[in-house]
Amino acid sequence: MSKAPLNIAIQGARYAFSEMATRQFFGDDVEIVSCRAFDDVFDTVIAENADYGVIPIENSLTGSIHRVYDLLLMHDLIIVGEVSLRIEQHLIAHPGVALEDIRTIYSHPQALEQSRNFLMSLKNVEAVASYDTAGSVKMIRDENMRDAAAIGSRWAAEDYGMQILKAEIEDIPENYTRFYVLSRQPKTFGEANKTSIVFSMKSIPGALFKSLSVFALRDIDLLRIESRPLRGRPWDYIFYLDFAGSMAEERCQNAIRHLEEITTQLKVLGSYPAAKYNNSSPK
Amino acid sequence: MSKAPLNIAIQGARYAFSEMATRQFFGDDVEIVSCRAFDDVFDTVIAENADYGVIPIENSLTGSIHRVYDLLLMHDLIIVGEVSLRIEQHLIAHPGVALEDIRTIYSHPQALEQSRNFLMSLKNVEAVASYDTAGSVKMIRDENMRDAAAIGSRWAAEDYGMQILKAEIEDIPENYTRFYVLSRQPKTFGEANKTSIVFSMKSIPGALFKSLSVFALRDIDLLRIESRPLRGRPWDYIFYLDFAGSMAEERCQNAIRHLEEITTQLKVLGSYPAAKYNNSSPK
Repeated sequence: MSKAPLNIAIQGARYAFSEMATRQFFGDDVEIVSCRAFDDVFDTVIAENADYGVIPIENSLTGSIHRVYDLLLMHDLIIVGEVSLRIEQHLIAHPGVALEDIRTIYSHPQALEQSRNFLMSLKNVEAVASYDTAGSVKMIRDENMRDAAAIGSRWAAEDYGMQILKAEIEDIPENYTRFYVLSRQPKTFGEANKTSIVFSMKSIPGALFKSLSVFALRDIDLLRIESRPLRGRPWDYIFYLDFAGSMAEERCQNAIRHLEEITTQLKVLGSYPAAKYNNSSPK
Repeated sequence: MSKAPLNIAIQGARYAFSEMATRQFFGDDVEIVSCRAFDDVFDTVIAENADYGVIPIENSLTGSIHRVYDLLLMHDLIIVGEVSLRIEQHLIAHPGVALEDIRTIYSHPQALEQSRNFLMSLKNVEAVASYDTAGSVKMIRDENMRDAAAIGSRWAAEDYGMQILKAEIEDIPENYTRFYVLSRQPKTFGEANKTSIVFSMKSIPGALFKSLSVFALRDIDLLRIESRPLRGRPWDYIFYLDFAGSMAEERCQNAIRHLEEITTQLKVLGSYPAAKYNNSSPK
């Protein structure tokens, strides 16, 4: 049976880490719908202009992307999958060019920042900020710049026929971004063993302790919890919580029903198979 | 009694938000010691080349700065104060220049990103990424660019004698960054009513619930909690926790002693007066 490729909405340009996460989850038979902003990813999926959205939720160095949690609360999309991607940075130049030839290195400021120690070890080299990592690789190729390099992904280097002059130049190799796969309808991509919820509550003494007791009483393990003060209402909190289990299980349904008794707002974002940890380089 | 100004180490250039946070906390009689990276702020204070360090720990849109938590764990500096700063973005140009004259807008990509809706509302205007927000304001002034504007702080505009063409152009006004004031020795800047700790524990069933019970049993309110998986050890967790109270109180000492029984690692980062919420503009 032949099938049309899935359309996947992501935020960012070609070769963005979101596209890598998409291909890691769905394989290569996908059409990428590139969106300017996180909001547009949600709108595109809701308007049925894409089958799924893939959106970053947390980075191991820079933390949770609260904006995406806000959008998850505002829209009725369901988390149906999770991807964890190791973020690698490589120095990319024309084949045959040596490190000593390089006078200028282009990349997105975040990639430059993540490769700061490497850049500082170079002499007589200027780091120049650009909008787009893969765009820097393309520019160096198109304009045949043989005294310049770009910082980008292995994948961009390979697709543009360029050489990796030095691999994994990032300062901190333990840099992972976690992505959610979003759907209009519940879908099954393997056995769901993880559930994400968001809830808010008044700051009464012991409130958080009580809310966590609904899981402890049922031997449900917590995988992640994060509190975030609600601005403008400095004594109210919103909590992001992931637990081990699926809403298909009765004990999880009971825990959520119990939690609803003591929260002011509660939303189950989805049950899905937990991500494995992988590198960003395509295999 | 006349006193030499305090030396305060921050990460970033002049007019960085860290400098605003510093002046909000210490007033204007300070000497800023500008450091390239977060690590350098810690090293500068430890080497006694600055009296205090001021360092961002959390942004309300982009989350916790895990790197700074790592540095707090690695170094023996104490949190003695907290500052919360509203992040505002303003469009800055030469006096007399009108919005219709502008063809190019320069700023750090993060400031451009935070002002995306405003930038998209303009026609025939190019947004150009630069390394440094205040540096963009200075460039436009020094090169007398009358068809260009920069996005930056009110303070940079005033100090460079430039005009705010449009104030508060950021998409989401509820954007706060929280900073810690770091010291080699305990210092008192008002009554300490908040304590920050970091701890790790094995992922045994109900472990987090047990760890929070040490506070609930003593009626100590939790102000913030965040879990973070330890990479490479995917079943071990590290927790950031703020509670209402000071380590000068016996009930808090008892709670921490109790918590030490069930954690694998625990560090009290400091007790300090909780921040008030303020705008970034100097008053």
